[in-house]
Amino acid sequence: MIRSRAQQIARGLCQIMGRELLKGNNKTIIRPPTQTRQTPQHPWSSSSSVRTISMLHWPFTQPRDFSLPNTSWDSDMRQLYEHYNSMCEVDTEDGGKKWGPWRRLPSYNRSLKYATGGVYLSKIIHSKARLFTRSIKEQGAAFEYVMFVNKEEQKCVCVFQAGHLLEGPPGMVHGGAIATMIDTVIGTHATYLSGPVMTANLNINYCSPIPLGSTVLLTSSLDKEEGRKTFLSSQVTSTDGTKLHTEATGLFVSVTMGHLVGA
Amino acid sequence: MIRSRAQQIARGLCQIMGRELLKGNNKTIIRPPTQTRQTPQHPWSSSSSVRTISMLHWPFTQPRDFSLPNTSWDSDMRQLYEHYNSMCEVDTEDGGKKWGPWRRLPSYNRSLKYATGGVYLSKIIHSKARLFTRSIKEQGAAFEYVMFVNKEEQKCVCVFQAGHLLEGPPGMVHGGAIATMIDTVIGTHATYLSGPVMTANLNINYCSPIPLGSTVLLTSSLDKEEGRKTFLSSQVTSTDGTKLHTEATGLFVSVTMGHLVGA
Repeated sequence: MIRSRAQQIARGLCQIMGRELLKGNNKTIIRPPTQTRQTPQHPWSSSSSVRTISMLHWPFTQPRDFSLPNTSWDSDMRQLYEHYNSMCEVDTEDGGKKWGPWRRLPSYNRSLKYATGGVYLSKIIHSKARLFTRSIKEQGAAFEYVMFVNKEEQKCVCVFQAGHLLEGPPGMVHGGAIATMIDTVIGTHATYLSGPVMTANLNINYCSPIPLGSTVLLTSSLDKEEGRKTFLSSQVTSTDGTKLHTEATGLFVSVTMGHLVGA
Repeated sequence: MIRSRAQQIARGLCQIMGRELLKGNNKTIIRPPTQTRQTPQHPWSSSSSVRTISMLHWPFTQPRDFSLPNTSWDSDMRQLYEHYNSMCEVDTEDGGKKWGPWRRLPSYNRSLKYATGGVYLSKIIHSKARLFTRSIKEQGAAFEYVMFVNKEEQKCVCVFQAGHLLEGPPGMVHGGAIATMIDTVIGTHATYLSGPVMTANLNINYCSPIPLGSTVLLTSSLDKEEGRKTFLSSQVTSTDGTKLHTEATGLFVSVTMGHLVGA
């Protein structure tokens, strides 16, 4: 009964909200119907290298994009953010702008709230649920991170600053928090490449501990795709890439959206 | 300078605090100098099966033991807690009490604060740091869990209730949160068996997702010990053991306390 009512509400909301779908590799990635705040969206419909994206009006409160700079970010994090963000749009010969090789991926504290389709929103009954990595409101206290993806090179990078609530060994980041970031980064990358997926395996080697409060770089690269399976590998290094903290492989299995939300 | 001052303070505190060390397998496990609240400590010094533990007075605020029942625990969690807790002390023939085969492990939001030795407390300068799994104060919102260990069988179990802040796929627990609990349980078990350790490898197979809000059972068992290496395996199942959610292996490497705290 509650679910049925929630579905009715969800369907109604969907009619208002509309949807924005970014097509890639004949698969569909759901993006929230909102603009990023820092990177302005340009009407580059004339450029062949830029997808034409219709920006829809968000009728309610603008959801917070957690992957934008805030005052808790240290200088390493800001510099790496600027480095990759500057490659998200580049100058054209005629003085205009066009997409660069990288995309910044926005990040919210719930994905479902902004997804499309009435039945998918039925899980709105978990009204208090929050994405694990974005569930703590205090800036800088837990997971501060931003992801960038490069479609052509099939790579993804994440700049991650570990807050004081992620402690494992004294003064060091908890192995579970590192696993969480690895799952998040290669899982997001797998979703970008293959559509909705679920984690099937993570194999993680912890090489050297990460000091609490420091910023590190996570990279994800595609190893292979076999049917519904996507294999990726990941490394966690110091920001200059000279020190290896963790390395991992991940196997992700494609699922339908219905499977994902238990519809 | 700050560190040096912190060390002085730490040494001073240590002289007041005293220490309680529980010896096992010629290795040392640090326990906080406090009693659990629910299981009374009895003067069973006459029983050979029970370790004589000197209970020291805690001169400051009593630290909260997060592994005791609270109002957020569902009936499954309470029943399993009672089941294992009832095997922590058993009746003797003469009407007394003695330790049973299981021990409940208390759990705090920092381990270091209650450890021994001035230099170890130098990390107190990370005053805001909190153990990742115990960093959220709201009861029932994140990781609710209690661990029991059986020395004779070399096994450990953990009853885990996943709160609404641990979401990954819609309505399901994040793969990173599951990895965190596995690392916590087999890491604690490895520490119990081998003294201070660091995680070297986690290999996790995700078999079926865990619904947000549900209670599951984690088990850990020792596979083998080779020099400084301790190999364990773990399963995450439904509370009745019939449904396998996740299975994992872990490799832990023994370290010195000095290594652990970067002294």
